[in-house]
Amino acid sequence: MIDLLIRHAEELLTLVGPVRPRVRAELDELGIIQDGAVAAQDGQIVAVGSTSEIEHAVEIGPATEIINAHGCVVLPGFVDPHTHLVFAGDRAEEFNRRLQGEPYLAILQAGGGILETVRATRAASEAELQHKAQIDLQAMLRHGTTTVEAKSGYGLAVEDELKLLRVVQQLQSTTPLEIVSTLLGAHTLPLEYRDRREAYVDLVIEQMIPRAAEAGLATFCDVFCEQGTFTLEETRRILRAGQAHGLQPKLHADQITANGGAQLAAEVRAISADHLDQSDDAGLRELAQVGVVGVLLPGATFFLGHGAPPTPLGRRLVDAGVAVAVASDYNPGTCPLLSMQLVIGLAAIREGLTTAQAISAATINAGHAVGRGSRIGSLEVGKQADMVVLAIPSHLHLPYRFGLNMVRDVIKRGRRVHKSGKG
Amino acid sequence: MIDLLIRHAEELLTLVGPVRPRVRAELDELGIIQDGAVAAQDGQIVAVGSTSEIEHAVEIGPATEIINAHGCVVLPGFVDPHTHLVFAGDRAEEFNRRLQGEPYLAILQAGGGILETVRATRAASEAELQHKAQIDLQAMLRHGTTTVEAKSGYGLAVEDELKLLRVVQQLQSTTPLEIVSTLLGAHTLPLEYRDRREAYVDLVIEQMIPRAAEAGLATFCDVFCEQGTFTLEETRRILRAGQAHGLQPKLHADQITANGGAQLAAEVRAISADHLDQSDDAGLRELAQVGVVGVLLPGATFFLGHGAPPTPLGRRLVDAGVAVAVASDYNPGTCPLLSMQLVIGLAAIREGLTTAQAISAATINAGHAVGRGSRIGSLEVGKQADMVVLAIPSHLHLPYRFGLNMVRDVIKRGRRVHKSGKG
Repeated sequence: MIDLLIRHAEELLTLVGPVRPRVRAELDELGIIQDGAVAAQDGQIVAVGSTSEIEHAVEIGPATEIINAHGCVVLPGFVDPHTHLVFAGDRAEEFNRRLQGEPYLAILQAGGGILETVRATRAASEAELQHKAQIDLQAMLRHGTTTVEAKSGYGLAVEDELKLLRVVQQLQSTTPLEIVSTLLGAHTLPLEYRDRREAYVDLVIEQMIPRAAEAGLATFCDVFCEQGTFTLEETRRILRAGQAHGLQPKLHADQITANGGAQLAAEVRAISADHLDQSDDAGLRELAQVGVVGVLLPGATFFLGHGAPPTPLGRRLVDAGVAVAVASDYNPGTCPLLSMQLVIGLAAIREGLTTAQAISAATINAGHAVGRGSRIGSLEVGKQADMVVLAIPSHLHLPYRFGLNMVRDVIKRGRRVHKSGKG
Repeated sequence: MIDLLIRHAEELLTLVGPVRPRVRAELDELGIIQDGAVAAQDGQIVAVGSTSEIEHAVEIGPATEIINAHGCVVLPGFVDPHTHLVFAGDRAEEFNRRLQGEPYLAILQAGGGILETVRATRAASEAELQHKAQIDLQAMLRHGTTTVEAKSGYGLAVEDELKLLRVVQQLQSTTPLEIVSTLLGAHTLPLEYRDRREAYVDLVIEQMIPRAAEAGLATFCDVFCEQGTFTLEETRRILRAGQAHGLQPKLHADQITANGGAQLAAEVRAISADHLDQSDDAGLRELAQVGVVGVLLPGATFFLGHGAPPTPLGRRLVDAGVAVAVASDYNPGTCPLLSMQLVIGLAAIREGLTTAQAISAATINAGHAVGRGSRIGSLEVGKQADMVVLAIPSHLHLPYRFGLNMVRDVIKRGRRVHKSGKG
């Protein structure tokens, strides 16, 4: 007897396919079933097809929860593969100053910017950080995200980074969302190491990574590889050290300046290379060859007010054969955005992805960008039953209804964990 | 005894000031009261001040509704002074084709674009149109809009335009939102008049305007003055005819091409000149001199993917001394956006307005853009009690929390008409 049946979806987007990230033509293949249905049992999908097929194939009992999705689109729950979830304070005032043209560098040099968040985060207790992150996770869930990656990176000291990773671990027991943990000790150089950068890199390598790995607090190790933060060589050392301790590499690459980040991601076989705004074609080709997922962060370029490049980055990635994922980049400084619906809208409106490509990028490819593509990101028998029901008649309405929260129901592991008040 | 008391607002934005649109420095003056309160009786504001002042000054009875706004911002309900509310069908597919680079002109020449909406709207019954618009109004209300302007313009024939205006009139009895009605018979040239443009202009002047005015169905008369739609001279004739019948002029000016629209708006003393993307400095100066409100439509440029001009339009308007309002431009073709919170965000992020300027533009100046600035748009004794409670600690969070619906409560004429499910 099944636990859950969603039926009569105007469009059921299965994103069915082989267990690997989608590239080029496949990015447009959503596997749409009209009048679709999906059944779940013990948290897993046990049947997917048309409503009439599925209703005959499964056993519905008195305990089966039935969700009618007439006039709605049903698709895999969104996976957000790049967020800086855990921090204290906000930077609304700085954000408004930047909108008025004040350069970030000037703010940073006056002790503001990321350093302000580091100060506030170090000063905050685990309980305070957890409380704040819980509120954000709840908002993400209401907007359809069912799996989220969360980076540390505002501690920048051994105990503080471990504190953030512990908060992530504890959050897992307070939310139905699934959280993937990433150590980003190399987010930026902390103030007290300003003139001892090598000593900080050593600290990350010799203490943060081993201790985070030993305590089982992180799956990935990330580095902000950028002019002014960590060099290519430092990034390589840190990521290699992470690998030696079983942490898979991931990196912030080529966001503001081109410095070979994409190539390094290919070299170390990173699970993903994120940002890539300044990557050259050769770098993108290497990502494509090795199969590194390129994570596009449309909110970051939008809020930073970057002008549109001649060819939008999303289209460049697709043309280069890179498997594209999209993410929110949720963080207090440059991108206070947490709705994956908006990310999909921005990816279509500003980054040149088709709506279908943006949806693949926010589900199956985002699942692969956090190493869970075999379990989440598509609706196939045997996969985890993570789904959202959107109150729109076609997936083409996703960018079109920009700014509305279209989510009606959110299902995680076969259980409805959110239902919109406006039904 | 008062009907309603909102108290303990972290910030109460009164936007108090003289009864005229705000310009330059005044645009930044929000009249913020910390721990603010506002009291209403019989739909009007009877007291505004700090919570301790107001609690002593008013008589609270058992029937008084009390709203505690701890940690929230309270401000005038948003006024959306430019929407194309009433239409049938959607254009999500066309929207997605345009995102992929298909030129609008090609779509139009194939009978798509606005002509598709005209076909669908003509074919729809009043009841169908009303049902659809009601859903959109409900979404607007949930996002904090308490007054909305609604244009006809998808009928483009005498009976069809009157049908749309009747729908607007009927909507007024089904929603707590206040609706301001505008005749936009001159939205575009209908297919059947393609080779008889003068005859269509005559039809607008000789039949649509007199009949709409006589039936009391419109307050304003609007024209889409643009290359390919109506010339400057045609626009002048139509607006003058409207004035002769008591309809105040309003126009779509200089959106795609500069053609003297701003100057004409000043010449006819329009209540507002809308779009203005291509207006030259001389045109803006004339608007400023005469006191025509400039209505900025940040969603339209965003969705049309227009590159950023060297100086953002919002800042140009402020610098020229134009009183700036912002509006959604809600329409099925170019701007399917209906949240004034997002409009404020886009105005700050893309158009160079400060957050304070964008808020003034969405409240008091938007009230003036629909001729109701003496009654709505600010929180002052004697004004209508239209208010929103936003779940943010400072107005600076409005652009910062881009994409979240921050509305907790909506009050129209002293009565709570919406309360967010998530409290």
